[in-house]
Amino acid sequence: MNRLGIITFLSDTGWGGGYVAVCEAIVTRLRPAVKVLHISHEIPAGDIAAGALVLERIAPLYPPAVHLGIVDPGVETVRRPLALETERGDVLVGPDNGLLVDAAVALGGLRECWTVDPLLVRAEAGLPVERISATFRGRDIYAPTAALLATGIKPASVATSVDPADLVRLAPPLCEISEEGAVAQVIEVDRFGNVGLGLRFADLPPEVGRYSVEIVGEHLPEWTARVVSTYGELLAGELGVFCDSWGQVALALKSASAAELLAVKRGMKVRLAPAHGSPPAG
Amino acid sequence: MNRLGIITFLSDTGWGGGYVAVCEAIVTRLRPAVKVLHISHEIPAGDIAAGALVLERIAPLYPPAVHLGIVDPGVETVRRPLALETERGDVLVGPDNGLLVDAAVALGGLRECWTVDPLLVRAEAGLPVERISATFRGRDIYAPTAALLATGIKPASVATSVDPADLVRLAPPLCEISEEGAVAQVIEVDRFGNVGLGLRFADLPPEVGRYSVEIVGEHLPEWTARVVSTYGELLAGELGVFCDSWGQVALALKSASAAELLAVKRGMKVRLAPAHGSPPAG
Amino acid sequence: MNRLGIITFLSDTGWGGGYVAVCEAIVTRLRPAVKVLHISHEIPAGDIAAGALVLERIAPLYPPAVHLGIVDPGVETVRRPLALETERGDVLVGPDNGLLVDAAVALGGLRECWTVDPLLVRAEAGLPVERISATFRGRDIYAPTAALLATGIKPASVATSVDPADLVRLAPPLCEISEEGAVAQVIEVDRFGNVGLGLRFADLPPEVGRYSVEIVGEHLPEWTARVVSTYGELLAGELGVFCDSWGQVALALKSASAAELLAVKRGMKVRLAPAHGSPPAG
Repeated sequence: MNRLGIITFLSDTGWGGGYVAVCEAIVTRLRPAVKVLHISHEIPAGDIAAGALVLERIAPLYPPAVHLGIVDPGVETVRRPLALETERGDVLVGPDNGLLVDAAVALGGLRECWTVDPLLVRAEAGLPVERISATFRGRDIYAPTAALLATGIKPASVATSVDPADLVRLAPPLCEISEEGAVAQVIEVDRFGNVGLGLRFADLPPEVGRYSVEIVGEHLPEWTARVVSTYGELLAGELGVFCDSWGQVALALKSASAAELLAVKRGMKVRLAPAHGSPPAG
Repeated sequence: MNRLGIITFLSDTGWGGGYVAVCEAIVTRLRPAVKVLHISHEIPAGDIAAGALVLERIAPLYPPAVHLGIVDPGVETVRRPLALETERGDVLVGPDNGLLVDAAVALGGLRECWTVDPLLVRAEAGLPVERISATFRGRDIYAPTAALLATGIKPASVATSVDPADLVRLAPPLCEISEEGAVAQVIEVDRFGNVGLGLRFADLPPEVGRYSVEIVGEHLPEWTARVVSTYGELLAGELGVFCDSWGQVALALKSASAAELLAVKRGMKVRLAPAHGSPPAG
Repeated sequence: MNRLGIITFLSDTGWGGGYVAVCEAIVTRLRPAVKVLHISHEIPAGDIAAGALVLERIAPLYPPAVHLGIVDPGVETVRRPLALETERGDVLVGPDNGLLVDAAVALGGLRECWTVDPLLVRAEAGLPVERISATFRGRDIYAPTAALLATGIKPASVATSVDPADLVRLAPPLCEISEEGAVAQVIEVDRFGNVGLGLRFADLPPEVGRYSVEIVGEHLPEWTARVVSTYGELLAGELGVFCDSWGQVALALKSASAAELLAVKRGMKVRLAPAHGSPPAG
């Protein structure tokens, strides 16, 4: 139960309007000794899957902590506020919309799932129980919950146990592998224009050295990409296929944006097919 | 006088060029144990009123602290550097241009007002007194002042008492309410495109269910908006009027940007008039 | 050797995808008591010189610390991972591509230079030694190195001493001063549109009151700029030349972007020539 007094925090609100600070302020007022570490607040607005991917990748790198995740385009509807205990000793706090579950799996799996009672949390935190806005649950529910759970309050005292089978889960990104190649979704475009696919590099056939790259369902030109170990092997303007730092297939250009070249965005489908007359890799 | 060793920090400089880090570095060098918490550094460049609004809303959520606010388009002219003690036990540090006063009111009101003497601050902090640039007062005056005041130095030892009546104050956002409806200024456009007005929701007549929405003085189409409690009640493409998490009137679309639809920006005036034949809300 | 348990961190990855958080998470897991302070993560992607400038300016403002700098467009090639000890007691950690050396000079000069052995670092840190990706050296090498060095591990235990003469160094920005004026490179464009040149203000002739401003090699209009002490002396629309807060020559407009007016970007060359019939400054 020692979670070191750390809250990690991921959201889609941006820093601009101060919404991140509001949540950090609440935590600081309730539990001044807790350290808030920011994962990212620039998750594309309302993109639950993008937030879930970042949380799943990064939460396990921290020591056991409370992970506060707020991407909640369905704020208007009745999303249950969750606290998910993991086998590693973390607690994930946020809406029941699929944002947290993949991270829980990456943190060793779900140990116990709870729906938070906003009134109990606010009473326990010494906050006015009647002031819960319809639209800012980060301030009114999630941040106080995270503050309490980061300092030893047991979920049972502010939440009710729920069946893990009832949690909302995201569909995994589409990924079809066959002898003719693979079709996979773009799951990430980074600041450098690298295009990450929802396809493990280890699942590509080892003997293929070049792929044709086609954006499914868009009238866009087809490209050829060479399998490389690092950007450095690429010639100027040459498209590369490589294993990114998460073990996934990525497309890259040297010193330029592959995403711009291909005109792709998160969610689009990419077909990789072994290129005709392709020489072996390496 | 126990302000917990916390400095909150708001500015319009952005993180990019390192100007935020400069101020944090100064604080860390002078007072390594002080914790700097960032409110926002993406206040629109030079927009004092936008900064004042965020500071007023968020400063009271922290425990008593030193609140460092730097939005200073008038850096070139003789803005007095201020330290404002509040009834709650906070100190606000920044330029005398209206940025701090609304926050002081939200923090229980002004207890005592001081103009900081840059030479005294730098001497007390052990910094070279002659090196004060004309253009970077955050580094040269405000950050050292905040560091000292966050750790028990009394304002009187580096500042002179001033009359609160002499402080520069911002005009409140325009807001006219009549039987024909209300005209109010846009005070906030958030990352999701929600449009916040400088008008308390409680000041709208309770029985109106729909409003016509007109942007004053612009040749833009007029819209109709329905009063709702949450985004969730809206149909796709339907404009809504609701009470935001600060108790203000806001305009929103479901999963789209109301600001884009209406083509509004901060500062524009919006007229809300009860729509003809409007059915009761609820 | 007391570096206070502080790591400052500068990169070009942006906060968005969580790459900053990955490095902070690694540090937090390895050394929970170390404080990570963020200088900037919005260095233009791959712009080593821009990162080096910010690091050189800001690192000396902190107390002695480990300064982690990651701008590494040559990630694909064999950049040696460095740890540079400075005379002031800091250690700079990052790639051997010129990013760190100017900061080392600003921190009192190089005391001893080391190339880090990734396998030794990972073994010392208790991380799986075989898992070093080709593309994310921040996570796999630099962050663990910074964590160890921030808490008393000696460089010699994870690195090999190297000759300072072998370090990659950046060419300084072009700067030619003659009786006809000066040609200097744009080294910075800030959020307010101020244009910083790689030219010390003290190197301008003191008696000149106006300069003609020409962007070298671009077919752009020529402007006249007046030497002023602060923005405040400028008339609306008047271009000014002044001494910025780093002692460099900068071009500015009052309440508008000089960079937009001049259509300049980082790296472009600007010629300043005393304007014909120019009256004395002041």
